[in-house]
Amino acid sequence: MSARIIDGTFIASQIRQSVSPGVAAFTARAGRPPCLGIVLVGEDPASGTYVRNKVKAGTESGLHVDLRRLSSSASLDELLAVVRELNASDRHDGILVQAPLPAALGRGAAQQVFDTIDPAKDVDGFSPVSVGRLVQGRALLAPCTPSGVIEMLDRCGITMSGARAVVIGRSEIVGKPMAMLLLQRDATVTVCHSKTPDLPGVGRDADILVAAIGRAGFVTRDFVKPGATVIDVGINRVTDASTAEGLFGASSARMADFAKRGSLVVGDVHPNVAEVAGALTPVPGGVGPLTIAMLLKNTLAAAEARAKSS
Amino acid sequence: MSARIIDGTFIASQIRQSVSPGVAAFTARAGRPPCLGIVLVGEDPASGTYVRNKVKAGTESGLHVDLRRLSSSASLDELLAVVRELNASDRHDGILVQAPLPAALGRGAAQQVFDTIDPAKDVDGFSPVSVGRLVQGRALLAPCTPSGVIEMLDRCGITMSGARAVVIGRSEIVGKPMAMLLLQRDATVTVCHSKTPDLPGVGRDADILVAAIGRAGFVTRDFVKPGATVIDVGINRVTDASTAEGLFGASSARMADFAKRGSLVVGDVHPNVAEVAGALTPVPGGVGPLTIAMLLKNTLAAAEARAKSS
Repeated sequence: MSARIIDGTFIASQIRQSVSPGVAAFTARAGRPPCLGIVLVGEDPASGTYVRNKVKAGTESGLHVDLRRLSSSASLDELLAVVRELNASDRHDGILVQAPLPAALGRGAAQQVFDTIDPAKDVDGFSPVSVGRLVQGRALLAPCTPSGVIEMLDRCGITMSGARAVVIGRSEIVGKPMAMLLLQRDATVTVCHSKTPDLPGVGRDADILVAAIGRAGFVTRDFVKPGATVIDVGINRVTDASTAEGLFGASSARMADFAKRGSLVVGDVHPNVAEVAGALTPVPGGVGPLTIAMLLKNTLAAAEARAKSS
Repeated sequence: MSARIIDGTFIASQIRQSVSPGVAAFTARAGRPPCLGIVLVGEDPASGTYVRNKVKAGTESGLHVDLRRLSSSASLDELLAVVRELNASDRHDGILVQAPLPAALGRGAAQQVFDTIDPAKDVDGFSPVSVGRLVQGRALLAPCTPSGVIEMLDRCGITMSGARAVVIGRSEIVGKPMAMLLLQRDATVTVCHSKTPDLPGVGRDADILVAAIGRAGFVTRDFVKPGATVIDVGINRVTDASTAEGLFGASSARMADFAKRGSLVVGDVHPNVAEVAGALTPVPGGVGPLTIAMLLKNTLAAAEARAKSS
């Protein structure tokens, strides 16, 4: 048995196509395209790549993307000042501050940023009001990664109502909102984490298993009930040849890739899960593209809601 | 085997005693006691009883309780005006609007009230900001019933970390915040509900089982793993003799009570659970008194936080 591989890139392109007419209509009505402000602090290469992809996807979809760069020595006050400027700006519909922030800004920096972003422009869905409204089942803007997973399940015809869903990981960004969204779709939802005894046993209860822990290949076939849908949210860079070989085998195409680049991007799900799962998202090309597509969708939704309320 | 019965009334009195020194110290510092505004709309007899108990408990603990009554014909605008007045009042530290509101106010009335209450005074913890902060693990004011359950488990020495917890019910008031609080205490948490197939089977996974569905005696011994802790959040009035007899047996003390009063208050947990559970909260005298004790604690916390920030 070999799992059906869910093509996230294709689904994301469908979502992006479905956003385009709304962007065109908004632009015609408003006399300007929906505008997404992205704030990037510092020089983290992975963050640089993510932001570049977001700018490209947004621009291709007809959004105006306003990228603000702050140097890695910027203070939290400077960052918050930019957020407040974008809050006050009439032409900015969405605001995204790329995570992670430089450690020098201090531990509570991200939370202070999320507390400052106007909930009406909070396309990441991390402000307290956005989180509260999500729990209450009336989110305007839900976090992009978990809402992308819901879209993906819908578009693949995978039934959530009545299903057992298990989310491994309890982050603010994925695990908790993922659990809330699955619950709203009438799944029976279990959240487990590093303190859970017998994670594989809990995982095997799942009809839908979401891995969001940030540990390369952690979820092996022992965690998976035969036929289950496995959603891999992890994005981990492996730079160690023996780890990569342990995951993919010495003579695999991925190892050839590793030899060429010196690293691999891998998910939280071990390749051997494909032998038992019914459906599986790959990394890369699974949930990642969905996250960006939902960001565009959220930006349009924010623009439309702001236009309606003004 | 017979379950240890958890004495909620005793635990609540301990919590109330622990609040008193704080209330006295606040009163000495501020020159006035912490003040809780309670708004009661209409003539629902159960709500009348709850409010009377809250006023009594608050007053006994040294709080000033300001009860505002609105007639059952009051409009939503009138109700929101009272909430705004209490928001603006410097001497009111906490605001509680007793649920349920009269149906005539419309379906979204409660949510509009919670959206209006100043989060700094939101002693019920139902405003979107309060809910968001709870999910983010930095609640100032957590909803009283689920936080009372956490206090109860702590004071009974029941370990949450690493335990399997199952919450039956997904209300905004109990189910969802209960799940979040248990997760913060490192339990592995499952939320199930009316769409869950095999509820008894899921229940039997639980080391800690919380029933919050509002159906008299729904959770029978089939739902319970031997030795589990069972928390009964239900408060249901049974007025039908055969239902009462089905729960308690014809010759029980509770049936004698029923004969005297014509009704009984019963939980969501069937009496036969006492034969398998390790520990069990009774109804009445279990979670109910905790809810009021936590309301007093929240009012003091709100008063202290407001004093600090002013």
